[in-house]
Amino acid sequence: MSGSIDVERLAARLEELARIGAIEGTHGCSRLAATDEDRAARDLVVDWMRALELEVTVDAIGNVFGTRAGRTDGPPVVTGSHVDTVARGGRYDGNLGVVAGLEVLEAWNATGVTTERPVAVGVFTNEEGVRFQPDMMGSGVHQGFFELADCLAARDADGLTLGDELARIGYAGDAEPFTPHAYVELHIEQGPVLEEAGVTIGAVTSVQGISWTELLLDGQANHAGTTPMRLRRDAGLVAAEIAAGARRIALEVGADQVATVGVMELVPGAVNVIPGSARLTVDLRNTDDGALREAEERLLELARDLAEGEGVALTERSLVRLSPVSFDPGTIDLVERAARALGHDVLRMPSGAGHDAQMFAPNCPTAMIFVPSRDGISHDPSEFTEPKELRAGVDVLHDVLRELAG
Amino acid sequence: MSGSIDVERLAARLEELARIGAIEGTHGCSRLAATDEDRAARDLVVDWMRALELEVTVDAIGNVFGTRAGRTDGPPVVTGSHVDTVARGGRYDGNLGVVAGLEVLEAWNATGVTTERPVAVGVFTNEEGVRFQPDMMGSGVHQGFFELADCLAARDADGLTLGDELARIGYAGDAEPFTPHAYVELHIEQGPVLEEAGVTIGAVTSVQGISWTELLLDGQANHAGTTPMRLRRDAGLVAAEIAAGARRIALEVGADQVATVGVMELVPGAVNVIPGSARLTVDLRNTDDGALREAEERLLELARDLAEGEGVALTERSLVRLSPVSFDPGTIDLVERAARALGHDVLRMPSGAGHDAQMFAPNCPTAMIFVPSRDGISHDPSEFTEPKELRAGVDVLHDVLRELAG
Repeated sequence: MSGSIDVERLAARLEELARIGAIEGTHGCSRLAATDEDRAARDLVVDWMRALELEVTVDAIGNVFGTRAGRTDGPPVVTGSHVDTVARGGRYDGNLGVVAGLEVLEAWNATGVTTERPVAVGVFTNEEGVRFQPDMMGSGVHQGFFELADCLAARDADGLTLGDELARIGYAGDAEPFTPHAYVELHIEQGPVLEEAGVTIGAVTSVQGISWTELLLDGQANHAGTTPMRLRRDAGLVAAEIAAGARRIALEVGADQVATVGVMELVPGAVNVIPGSARLTVDLRNTDDGALREAEERLLELARDLAEGEGVALTERSLVRLSPVSFDPGTIDLVERAARALGHDVLRMPSGAGHDAQMFAPNCPTAMIFVPSRDGISHDPSEFTEPKELRAGVDVLHDVLRELAG
Repeated sequence: MSGSIDVERLAARLEELARIGAIEGTHGCSRLAATDEDRAARDLVVDWMRALELEVTVDAIGNVFGTRAGRTDGPPVVTGSHVDTVARGGRYDGNLGVVAGLEVLEAWNATGVTTERPVAVGVFTNEEGVRFQPDMMGSGVHQGFFELADCLAARDADGLTLGDELARIGYAGDAEPFTPHAYVELHIEQGPVLEEAGVTIGAVTSVQGISWTELLLDGQANHAGTTPMRLRRDAGLVAAEIAAGARRIALEVGADQVATVGVMELVPGAVNVIPGSARLTVDLRNTDDGALREAEERLLELARDLAEGEGVALTERSLVRLSPVSFDPGTIDLVERAARALGHDVLRMPSGAGHDAQMFAPNCPTAMIFVPSRDGISHDPSEFTEPKELRAGVDVLHDVLRELAG
């Protein structure tokens, strides 16, 4: 059924997109949301959509849809992703989902396939959340998770609003949001699990819940030589013990639980001064909300005990709390069946990263297809997925869309 | 014998020095070595020395000596300290030892005391080591521990050499170095031990050996959500576990052993990125060189095990290694006897900080007198010692110098 899929054409589109905001000397690019580079990438995608005779619409948060008509009206099956990148990004994250959707529709145009339902390729605004927060903004507004007005008013570091920037680049539209018949997104894994397992296709079952907590510790700066151990109130020591404890808690909670301390700052930060204060962040994720809550509670209990033991004041602040999202069992099964029918091994797996798909999951049958990321690397110019893996991903997307579109 | 000691005059001199480089809104001052502020403080001390009819000399590393003649020639008994401060320093650290020496000589002038041996008050260049490294530079050159040429060539962050800066401020002299008959220095404790014990006078027995090690950890930065715990090479985690381990090792080695992790830097330092690399420093100190070596060996062994377990590369770099210094038992006894005779409680204690005295200890009978630091705070504008404690310290210094000078 996917005989007209042309992976070289798909790779050429990824290459052409990657030239916009290209980072010299790398295969990656820098294309923050609603910048001139984002505009150029959107314009290119819209050109491709028009060449495929898709109906192009833009909504108020700047999401672009290119829709191929079905035999009947009614809500379309949607696929897609995003073309914004992080500041030093790769060429696959997001972009693959968009060009893969276009590749499927081009194959259908070439072979004269007609479907019962319309099929649309979506390009969602500001998935990365680097220039404007929160992330997954376009899909979140489209599916009613975020307020449109709040997101348009979001400001970047220079004080510019997303609303003004979308108008400036010509992507402030007026298309109405809608609930798709179904949503399916092809994306790179952004982690090492498929590669390690030697499996080409991930059938994504869920997106991990995310809990980010900032911990501020306030002790007493003092001379590293003259202050006996028993008289110390070392904020840095407590921070270090919390970080070591976060690893233990993740291993004890087990299953999919992960814990990361990515930020740890000691003040004043001198070799011979006991840190008077410290700041650290703890990133906890799990697909099971109960287990995630257990990890959060154990971490805070540990932090409080450690701080009290050292005579250090602790302030906790929740930065992000997103519950896990489960995808639709029937659509997950469809992904797995399609992949196996094409001769691929399949791993059912959660997503550790957030994706536009999670915004659709509460409102319509939703699933995702993962392909491997070499060395698990993403959000970096060295991001890479083999052509044969790209081909496998597009083939599965093709067959799943064909089935969903009827 | 110390009836003419005037603690108000001494406090007024500390106040006058503290006005040079005063930090607004505090009682502290900022007077880095060989700056205009350092020159102004030196000029003021030289004025006081001349008013006391001391013979003023300056040597090639900028140390100033004000010498009161004895009935005989021969090597003088030396007291003193330094008038440079850290960037945000207090008014007592160093300055107290200089003005206390002058106070003793002024009392002797007033009462017509003559001594067998000359007595000199020394002001040593760049004790703090903030602008130019290493610290204790003036006393170290004077006593042959450092090379004069190396120290004059030391450069500050702007590339200026100490030699040029000493010439600029008028303190590049040509007096010959000498070995004193004995050396005794009054200093604030810079730690909480005397205050906690409720004791006014510390008879310093030794200076802790110091071992500073920088540890660089190189793992793999990765996505905090998509990278399972078992596939991580988290440099930040290893850094945290080393810091927690340093505390355990200090407690297990026991006695005077202290361990401090004052610097910990995680790269890239983002909430949702596993740290790919980390830098930390470990400051280990002990008065017993064998125990210090044990702590160093255990720490490195632990760091290597932790790094290997996580698949993280470890690079170790020794930044500073100074062996412990013991003071002269007879001179320590003299300090203790003088203090008890004056009715003060005395605690024999090591110094956790480095002092000019340690440079003299290998070459002549040497000891130090400590007075309490409120809350153990030093190297901060809030540094404070009670007037009655200053008085006690000067009285003890007076009687010890009287005994040593004959």
